[in-house]
Amino acid sequence: MARWQPDASGRLQEAALELYGERGFESTTVAEIAERAGLTKRTFFRYFADKREVLFHGSERLAETFATAIAAAPASAAPLDAAIAALDAAAPYFEERRAFATRRQQIIAASPELRERELIKLAKLAEVVADALRARGVGEPAATLTAEAAITVFRVTFGRWVDPANRKSFERLVRDSVADLRAVTAVAR
Amino acid sequence: MARWQPDASGRLQEAALELYGERGFESTTVAEIAERAGLTKRTFFRYFADKREVLFHGSERLAETFATAIAAAPASAAPLDAAIAALDAAAPYFEERRAFATRRQQIIAASPELRERELIKLAKLAEVVADALRARGVGEPAATLTAEAAITVFRVTFGRWVDPANRKSFERLVRDSVADLRAVTAVAR
Repeated sequence: MARWQPDASGRLQEAALELYGERGFESTTVAEIAERAGLTKRTFFRYFADKREVLFHGSERLAETFATAIAAAPASAAPLDAAIAALDAAAPYFEERRAFATRRQQIIAASPELRERELIKLAKLAEVVADALRARGVGEPAATLTAEAAITVFRVTFGRWVDPANRKSFERLVRDSVADLRAVTAVAR
Repeated sequence: MARWQPDASGRLQEAALELYGERGFESTTVAEIAERAGLTKRTFFRYFADKREVLFHGSERLAETFATAIAAAPASAAPLDAAIAALDAAAPYFEERRAFATRRQQIIAASPELRERELIKLAKLAEVVADALRARGVGEPAATLTAEAAITVFRVTFGRWVDPANRKSFERLVRDSVADLRAVTAVAR
């Protein structure tokens, strides 16, 4: 058994992931998800606005984790280091559900509608990071540039981490990706 | 008179921008845009798939400009310099229509639906840049990180350039924004 004990919301997420994997996101209905989970449509809508949102359930919690970590970073931390601390803070959340995250990512990659949804969620996360940096006194455009850089590192890290061949931890891959970003933005000699 | 001479497509864009500015994007219909331009709905749909696309008409041309510029950058250019050459190549296109671009940006900022559409267009541009970099032999994750960094610079540059108080050229602001990105990603001492 997975460590993650599914309650009603978790059962619905698991059922959705199964069905999206089996027949595709577009051809799955909310009624089918509820049925697979042994619950009603009404219960589904108590937790999720629609069949897309069932895949993005963690994004508000993630945004809170990011904002809290940035606020808690030492006052002396450079803006990018404070933003990267947000990714480190989220690492345990991801490590707890790598199998789920991997299947979820495959489903999102297969659907243009879900890829668009994910872009929007990532843009919202970038806004949360930029807001948290501005609250630390970081000005513009540094706050926006740093937040976008951190979210790019997040995306790249995530892609590397869910790769079936990957054996590195999420946190280790954050380090690697930050180093890679610094290499591509360094002034050429 | 503006230097930009409106043909049917240009007249529709101008009419759309006027109407979106006057009554908002959501409350404007294609029929009203066509009427304001002195054209038919049928003509509208010959040029644009829907009332959103009228604001994103230039994005394919922009993608082509980006791809061509990256392919033409000297073989010795670092990946980020090649990607930034794409922004420089697009500068004349923007400079020709600053007033239009400024009004367009205000309309997009006011509509969540249009902001989402813009995110998707920018993500597609980032893919074009990453593809063009990979075609130069840039590996992963460097190609993705560089492309995302360049598109972030593009967004930040664009925002500074359309600011009513701005007096700097698009190209000059690209330089400034790249320098700012390098400052935030530089390793702290």
